[in-house]
Amino acid sequence: MTRLNINNINPHVVEAKYAVRGELAVKSEEYRAKLRRGDKDLPFSQVVSANIGNPQQLDQKPITFFRQVLSLLENPKLLEHEDVLLNSLGYKPDVLERAKKLLHDVGSVGAYSASAGVPAIKESIAKFLEARDGFPADPAHIYLSAGASSAVNTLLHIICAAPNSGVLVPIPQYPLYTASLSVLNATCVPYYLNEHEHWGTSHDAIKEAYTAAKANGTDVRAIVIINPGNPTGASLPEEDVKSVLEFAAEEKLVVLADEVYQTNVFIGTFHSFRQTLHKLQQEDPEKYGDVELASMHSVSKGMVGECGHRGGYFDLVGFDKEVEEQIYKFVSITLCAPVIGQCLVEMMVNPPKPGDPSWELYNEEYSGIFNRLRERANALYETFLGMDGVECGKPQGSMYLFPTVHVPPKAAEEAKREGRTPDEFYCMRMLEATGVCVVPGSGFGQKEGTLHFRTTFLAPGTEWVGAIRKFHNEFMEKYR
Amino acid sequence: MTRLNINNINPHVVEAKYAVRGELAVKSEEYRAKLRRGDKDLPFSQVVSANIGNPQQLDQKPITFFRQVLSLLENPKLLEHEDVLLNSLGYKPDVLERAKKLLHDVGSVGAYSASAGVPAIKESIAKFLEARDGFPADPAHIYLSAGASSAVNTLLHIICAAPNSGVLVPIPQYPLYTASLSVLNATCVPYYLNEHEHWGTSHDAIKEAYTAAKANGTDVRAIVIINPGNPTGASLPEEDVKSVLEFAAEEKLVVLADEVYQTNVFIGTFHSFRQTLHKLQQEDPEKYGDVELASMHSVSKGMVGECGHRGGYFDLVGFDKEVEEQIYKFVSITLCAPVIGQCLVEMMVNPPKPGDPSWELYNEEYSGIFNRLRERANALYETFLGMDGVECGKPQGSMYLFPTVHVPPKAAEEAKREGRTPDEFYCMRMLEATGVCVVPGSGFGQKEGTLHFRTTFLAPGTEWVGAIRKFHNEFMEKYR
Repeated sequence: MTRLNINNINPHVVEAKYAVRGELAVKSEEYRAKLRRGDKDLPFSQVVSANIGNPQQLDQKPITFFRQVLSLLENPKLLEHEDVLLNSLGYKPDVLERAKKLLHDVGSVGAYSASAGVPAIKESIAKFLEARDGFPADPAHIYLSAGASSAVNTLLHIICAAPNSGVLVPIPQYPLYTASLSVLNATCVPYYLNEHEHWGTSHDAIKEAYTAAKANGTDVRAIVIINPGNPTGASLPEEDVKSVLEFAAEEKLVVLADEVYQTNVFIGTFHSFRQTLHKLQQEDPEKYGDVELASMHSVSKGMVGECGHRGGYFDLVGFDKEVEEQIYKFVSITLCAPVIGQCLVEMMVNPPKPGDPSWELYNEEYSGIFNRLRERANALYETFLGMDGVECGKPQGSMYLFPTVHVPPKAAEEAKREGRTPDEFYCMRMLEATGVCVVPGSGFGQKEGTLHFRTTFLAPGTEWVGAIRKFHNEFMEKYR
Repeated sequence: MTRLNINNINPHVVEAKYAVRGELAVKSEEYRAKLRRGDKDLPFSQVVSANIGNPQQLDQKPITFFRQVLSLLENPKLLEHEDVLLNSLGYKPDVLERAKKLLHDVGSVGAYSASAGVPAIKESIAKFLEARDGFPADPAHIYLSAGASSAVNTLLHIICAAPNSGVLVPIPQYPLYTASLSVLNATCVPYYLNEHEHWGTSHDAIKEAYTAAKANGTDVRAIVIINPGNPTGASLPEEDVKSVLEFAAEEKLVVLADEVYQTNVFIGTFHSFRQTLHKLQQEDPEKYGDVELASMHSVSKGMVGECGHRGGYFDLVGFDKEVEEQIYKFVSITLCAPVIGQCLVEMMVNPPKPGDPSWELYNEEYSGIFNRLRERANALYETFLGMDGVECGKPQGSMYLFPTVHVPPKAAEEAKREGRTPDEFYCMRMLEATGVCVVPGSGFGQKEGTLHFRTTFLAPGTEWVGAIRKFHNEFMEKYR
């Protein structure tokens, strides 16, 4: 053996791309460190990390009920001082009750739980799914995970059996999917979302991608949908969800529904794949009875925004029993999802209800976050509308806008000389000029000949938005 | 595509074995549920999970300082009530200070951290390594992880490039290694530990395994050592550590040092691979200057015992810069290790010091856990010594004993009829008779013709130990 080097390590890891934390993100952290050291040479005074949906890094405050309960789970001895908690520290009785209930169910949050998660938390998720969808759920098919990323990792590990195992992935997509498929040495089968129809899914585009892949010998096994969309922000109408399920039923594809933004919806309503599938199964049991669906959810997004806690779950419909045994074994190798994260999942799916002592504050915080996000999304959207050479659809959901940017040919030439794509070049210049870090569309995939960037609308204030506009105008002027 | 089934999913996942949470563990959970429902048919009144090193599931209490700080990190608003914390709730000033320091370094524990971990926490780990080993450490080569399991997953993903990439794994071993290599479709190159030399490493055994694998076309790239041992409990003398490093230097193997039990040492002293390598590098820079070493540690074991928090780290010595960039990218795909777990790592490596307000209680709790574990280990060992057909070495370290059991031929025949190995058969009968769940030696690997089982010595009381003895005597009587 020679020493490990870039040419002899796992080539599938080397091939994987993950732009969300790539070169631009690394450079933005260097700038942040420079500013912290008091550097005065930079043309901006703050770095804005609009490259990643990380709400609490920016302005979003954690929800009080959740964090009060977590503080008691971490230090159960506090429960020996109920009077102090209630009278001096502002804890409400339902906070204490929930902490006691979770401690009863979990034991110590410092102990491994069962591999698939704490049974009582799985029951709570099942109740949530039933209330959300109007169809009962079975805790036996629910698996707690370390955020949705680890759920995706588990499911793709099971599904991909060989290099020609294919998974339909929307383009643009959150690059976790393409990166994981690279690492697994499986085949990504890209299908394009329809930018002109609010980034919806197109039956024709999916069918075309599927048919071409099959013709090339790819064994297409699954289809990924991200709803609401990342990076697109699309909030899918029920017809799109139905259409995907119909195609999956016809071609016997596993449906992987990434629904982590299910509460970040500004236009229309969230239609879960699970609910829609069960409706279709009632209408046409023969056609839909066998569909395999895995739905993912997480505490990282929505008004919870607790990504640092790495909590999430996936639930399965229609999977073979022996396959589920393998899923159980796979998750057991990493022992269990973080237990505090599991407890957060429980509170996300079972928050305070009207009439509960913590309801009022919870509701105020929750609605406040929701409204602020919508306001910020709309303000950013309005700014983009006023920018020459930028096109952007109305904010529909998730935490992102994904505008088109028409980079002038002269800029594209200079980009080429730098060895960058034009959108990378544009985003790099933006970072250098403004301290705002966004992700070029090429990090998510985009139709040939189009250029985009993804920005979150999580950051507070209007200064950074103004800085983007100023940069853009100067950029367009320079390369006109 | 047809529906997913056991024959068309990823065969490498299907091949993987992970007995620690296998059939016996599942059955023990069924018994536990039965007992909870008030079932009176079972011949025991409690299930003892001696199959897994899960301290807080059994008797081990979390350390107060850690949990008090964590409660403040989860609910920083508590810091607005310093007088209440100090005067009514027993929090010491250093608890408040540490919480403020960590909140300053981390921001919100609900936000993603940098991919490789919070920079200030990496600095704290570097200081710990320097103090422990007497050689400076660079935070740039430290990566926070979700327990050691995720560290192993990352490192094996990088190292294994093809099906013939081989990794030397001790037998018996913690099955994370063989399971991960199965999933990665790489080659496990087993080398036997020397039971008659306190389960130490044998240069000859390693060389033999290596040479045979090379001759078979395996590209052997790395060697795993677990010290203190799992399942063996071995605490390696410095000569063993040196001998492994010498072999690695000669054959240019990456050394993967699993040191999660480094504080669970009853005999001898813990010799870290990192310290020993740096000493050897001073003595013979030419021979040892290039050795690549990855060392892993975790909050799950030791006196911390916080496995549910999924905290850990690995540190690298001698790795190529471009390879480290790939490691960074790989860990960034899963975003970051749980941030609360990262904070626990910080406290593990930087606990209260003599003179600090929390020192006395911390020291009392820490020593209490250590002494209780040693007492229980010795009590269990004495029991095994008194059992006919059982051989066991003195408890040296980690959380396990791994006795040999001489299963009578008649029992082996009956096991065969059940489709089990004799040790599986023995452990299954033990579970059915006593409610004590241990893991058969075949789950870890053992020399042909030998049989063992692994049991933790975490459970309190002597009742379960007595139940094992009674079961064993009846088993030996029945199959004599």
